[in-house]
Amino acid sequence: MRVRNKPWAPKLINAHPELITETPTDYRGKWQSRFEKAQPLQIEVGSGKGQFIIEMAKRHPEINYIAIEIQTSVIAVILRKLVDEPLPNLQLAHADGQAVTAFFEPNEVDRLYLNFSDPWPKKRHAKRRLTYKSFLAGYQDVLKPNGQIEFKTDNRGLFEFSLTSMNNFGMAFEQVWLDLHADETVEDNVETEYEQKFSQFGPIYKIIATFKSEK
Amino acid sequence: MRVRNKPWAPKLINAHPELITETPTDYRGKWQSRFEKAQPLQIEVGSGKGQFIIEMAKRHPEINYIAIEIQTSVIAVILRKLVDEPLPNLQLAHADGQAVTAFFEPNEVDRLYLNFSDPWPKKRHAKRRLTYKSFLAGYQDVLKPNGQIEFKTDNRGLFEFSLTSMNNFGMAFEQVWLDLHADETVEDNVETEYEQKFSQFGPIYKIIATFKSEK
Repeated sequence: MRVRNKPWAPKLINAHPELITETPTDYRGKWQSRFEKAQPLQIEVGSGKGQFIIEMAKRHPEINYIAIEIQTSVIAVILRKLVDEPLPNLQLAHADGQAVTAFFEPNEVDRLYLNFSDPWPKKRHAKRRLTYKSFLAGYQDVLKPNGQIEFKTDNRGLFEFSLTSMNNFGMAFEQVWLDLHADETVEDNVETEYEQKFSQFGPIYKIIATFKSEK
Repeated sequence: MRVRNKPWAPKLINAHPELITETPTDYRGKWQSRFEKAQPLQIEVGSGKGQFIIEMAKRHPEINYIAIEIQTSVIAVILRKLVDEPLPNLQLAHADGQAVTAFFEPNEVDRLYLNFSDPWPKKRHAKRRLTYKSFLAGYQDVLKPNGQIEFKTDNRGLFEFSLTSMNNFGMAFEQVWLDLHADETVEDNVETEYEQKFSQFGPIYKIIATFKSEK
């Protein structure tokens, strides 16, 4: 997501260490200490402006959420919303979500969300896609046994790649949607900003997949 | 595929035992004897009017093909084409493709094609879908180790189901297409009659998946 630079962002981030950290490695194995209550932990890698994770946190007070986003001007938007309307079960990490194993201990995370990740369409950039096997290995590491990934995208090429990559990695597919918004039985879909805007132009793909218990 | 009854069909079938069999169990383990040359064997389960398998047989004289189709008036159309233009590497089986293990010995088949199979959209009919696990087990049985399935459909629900079913069965995905006709790198797609007619209305999905060597 490309956004205009926000000169106020760094200052806001510095002013709220209780809501956001720029050194998530400090909390490896200790994330629960940043929340009011110790509860199951779910993370989103690449949260954009946070519409998804904020709505999830509102709907599920029984779950703790961490939004990870690398772009200063983007995560600052989530932070501003959070300052306006505090949520005791949402914490922000201003960092590169690719490094999850540096941020979380093995088995620390219950579920991981990837929403509309960068498709990196060129073949030579396949290793940068967040569903490439090396990233899957990292997610498996930090997730509990049988931990799940929920992945949504509107990018056909990325979804084709991801189905193959997750399958080849040995993940078990729980459910696949090739046009999520056409499925009338889905009632709890929380849309991202991007999804809201772009679903009119083509299908939204989604998969829920589980890492098998052996690590 | 629903077609008009063809009164001439049974007579034509009876007249050409060298091209078509109605008792494929008789050839279990002996299919190569029905061809001019012993060559790798590929089968299509549910061949419709045969446009796909005839074109494949023309393009690949180094492979022997068997078209399996249960409907008399449909397989008779393939047979009529074959009588008009003989192909030494194509044989027909007028039978229910669901019973592949009765028709082929273990390891007798090199590759299996499923094209635009009946979607059986109702949940209670899931077991009839040709990618249901019991059928996959049958295909695995007759295919050589690391044998492949190539499956095409325009039915979103059936493809979603098939991705999950094949994954859960332990098959390895080679490649997935969520809009086959949009992929300009694909040069060797042989279209079925149905595909030619209906691809204008929505994407054609395709997967190539491999059974892992352990049976």
